[in-house]
Amino acid sequence: MRRPDARPLYVQVEAILNARIVSGDWKSGQALPAEPELAAELGVSAGTLRRALARLEQRHLIERRQGRGTYVTQQTSEQALGQFFRVRNLAGMPVEPETLITGVATGPATEEEGAKLRLQPGETVHRIERSRVFEGEPRIAEQIIVPAALFPGLSLPLAPAQLATEIYVHYRNAHGIIVVQAEENLSATAASEADSAVLGCAVGTPLLLIERVTFDAAGRPVELRVSRLDTRSHRYAVEIA
Amino acid sequence: MRRPDARPLYVQVEAILNARIVSGDWKSGQALPAEPELAAELGVSAGTLRRALARLEQRHLIERRQGRGTYVTQQTSEQALGQFFRVRNLAGMPVEPETLITGVATGPATEEEGAKLRLQPGETVHRIERSRVFEGEPRIAEQIIVPAALFPGLSLPLAPAQLATEIYVHYRNAHGIIVVQAEENLSATAASEADSAVLGCAVGTPLLLIERVTFDAAGRPVELRVSRLDTRSHRYAVEIA
Repeated sequence: MRRPDARPLYVQVEAILNARIVSGDWKSGQALPAEPELAAELGVSAGTLRRALARLEQRHLIERRQGRGTYVTQQTSEQALGQFFRVRNLAGMPVEPETLITGVATGPATEEEGAKLRLQPGETVHRIERSRVFEGEPRIAEQIIVPAALFPGLSLPLAPAQLATEIYVHYRNAHGIIVVQAEENLSATAASEADSAVLGCAVGTPLLLIERVTFDAAGRPVELRVSRLDTRSHRYAVEIA
Repeated sequence: MRRPDARPLYVQVEAILNARIVSGDWKSGQALPAEPELAAELGVSAGTLRRALARLEQRHLIERRQGRGTYVTQQTSEQALGQFFRVRNLAGMPVEPETLITGVATGPATEEEGAKLRLQPGETVHRIERSRVFEGEPRIAEQIIVPAALFPGLSLPLAPAQLATEIYVHYRNAHGIIVVQAEENLSATAASEADSAVLGCAVGTPLLLIERVTFDAAGRPVELRVSRLDTRSHRYAVEIA
C-alpha cells in the first residue's frame, strides 16, 4: 500500500505541473489552461493552485503576462544570461559575452565529477572547452562537463551564427533539459600556463575560480562548470537581500 | 499641491510599516497588532495588508511565528551570519568566525568611499580594521568604513565577550541601523605585505576580494566593506535560482 503523500497540497500540485513542463506535455511558450479549469481538473481550490503557480513562477518555469494569461517560459539567451551570468564591467554594467568553443571530448567521469553529477564511477561525460569573450578580449576560460546519458550526441551549436545562443537554451531545445538552479563555490587561483594562453595574462595572475553545479527542473545535477574569470577589468556581482 | 502617491497601495502600506520599525516606534522583538486591527487602522483591505507584510517578511524586517502572530525581527548574530556571511569550508559547511578588531580610526572619506556611501566630499567616516578567524586561523583581512554621522561615537564591542556578536547586531542595538541588503563585487587579487602579515600567507597568494556596500531598511548605504578571503581552505558560496 502506498503511503499518502505527506507534502502540503500546493507542493503536490507544483510537482504535477512541473512534471507536465519537464515531460514536454506542456511545451515551451504554450499557454496554460485558465485557472478555474485547471483547479477543477486537479480538484484543488483556486488558492492552492495559485500558490503552486507562484512557486513555478519563482523558479522561472512559467510566466504571467498581464491580462493575457500564464505561459510556459520560452527561455531566451537574454533570460538565461540575466539569471545565470553575473559578470559586470567596472562601471557595474552587464557584459554581453561571445562564446568560442575550442574543444569537445567524451570520456569516463573522474571521481570528483561523478560525485558532483551523482554518476556511477566511470559513467560517460562530455567535456566542452570554451572561452568567453567580452568586447573582443577573452576573459573566461571555461570547462563544462555534462553526463552523456542526459545529452546524447550533444549536437553543439558550433556554427558561428549560433555561438551567441546561450548553451542553456541549447540544452532545452535540443535535449529537453530545463536548467532552473545552480550552486557555486568561488575562490581565487593563480593563472596556469593554459589559462595564460587562453586569457592572454601572465602566468600567476590572480583569477576568480567559479565552480558551478547546475540543476534541472527535476532537481537533477545536469552540468558541472569550472570557470576562470580574469578580473582585471570585470567583477562578479552578488546581491544579498 | 502634493501629487497623489502613484505607488501601488500595498507598497505605500509597506513604506508606512517600514517607517514604524526604522523609527523604533515598533521595537525589535515586539508583536505587531492583529491583522484585522492593523488593516482597519490603515484603512486597507486584508489582502493589501498581507501583501505588504509579505514584503517586509521577505526583507527580514518581520517574522511570522506559526499560530502566535507576527513580530519585529530581533536580529541575532546567527541570523545576521546566515543572511550575510557566505563562507563555507571545503566540505560545504558554514564556518563560525571569531572576530578580532585591530584598529579603529576616524577621518575624511576618500572620493571613492564618498561616492559609494553617498557622502559629500570630506565627510567624516570611521574605519575599522579587523580579521576574521576560522578554527584558530585568520582567513579574512577586512576593512569596514561607516559614515560618522550615522554612527556617532561608534562604541564598538571591543570586550572579548562581545567579539562573537555580529557587527550588524551592534549597528542595530547601539545605533538603530537595521541592515537588510547588500551588493557585492567579487574579484581576485594578490596578497599584499599587509595581507600576508594578517593572514600568514605568502605575498602574492591569490585572495578573493569582496567589495560590499550595505543598505539599511530605509535604502541608505550605511557601510562599505572590503574583505580579502584566503581561499586555500574556504569557499564563498552562491545560490542561483
